[in-house]
Amino acid sequence: MPGNPPHRRWVFNLHDESAGIPRKLAEGIRSRVFAGEHAMLSVVRVEPHTSGTIHSHPEEQWGVLLEGECVRIQDGVEAPVRAGDFWHTPGGVAHGVRTGASAAVILDIFSPSRKEYAQAGEGFGDAQVFPPSSR
Amino acid sequence: MPGNPPHRRWVFNLHDESAGIPRKLAEGIRSRVFAGEHAMLSVVRVEPHTSGTIHSHPEEQWGVLLEGECVRIQDGVEAPVRAGDFWHTPGGVAHGVRTGASAAVILDIFSPSRKEYAQAGEGFGDAQVFPPSSR
Repeated sequence: MPGNPPHRRWVFNLHDESAGIPRKLAEGIRSRVFAGEHAMLSVVRVEPHTSGTIHSHPEEQWGVLLEGECVRIQDGVEAPVRAGDFWHTPGGVAHGVRTGASAAVILDIFSPSRKEYAQAGEGFGDAQVFPPSSR
Repeated sequence: MPGNPPHRRWVFNLHDESAGIPRKLAEGIRSRVFAGEHAMLSVVRVEPHTSGTIHSHPEEQWGVLLEGECVRIQDGVEAPVRAGDFWHTPGGVAHGVRTGASAAVILDIFSPSRKEYAQAGEGFGDAQVFPPSSR
């Protein structure tokens, strides 16, 4: 497009909800996915009073809480986290998120990239999910 | 340590300058490195009026501008970026950063992990650097 600066191809913005590949992970949890060759970024918005399904996948994951507050659940441990906190999840470790009165905006980083997240869709892809009774 | 919650092993904070592996990348550019198996995070603080060396490395990189403003230089293109902007740099692409009156705090994500950043040190590790005359 004439006049469109060349860096628009590689610069994005966390708050641009028109960018990235949309995915509804669960009720109240929506993400925008940006796929790299080795690492994939997912900007996740969690509404207040929402619980994500506990799940695991073989890919390594980092999460950064950009805005708000939530409880990060990992390997059976519940960690209250605030904006600026970030966490590491090795592949295969069961994890999830829960919000209270605050919403949360989380930057998830997957490596290797999760192939099933490279197209628009719903749900946690190929992840193994754990029913509430097993937690 | 008695009373130390178990999640302290996997929850960190972007503003905790006692966490991570310290690295001075260049004059006025300091980072704290957190090494995963496949993806490595580096929280980089760039002082005002600072220019980083243009360099490249085979690892893929994402950058997220957490605070402040800077100019992201990539493949010869200069992109002014603000907090909330993020960018993708494929492996092998020459890149760097420059600040004006504002400082910048950047979250860099490398995949694969950069082995030479997994210990404390100075400089850009095994990266290829480009002298100013070649830019």
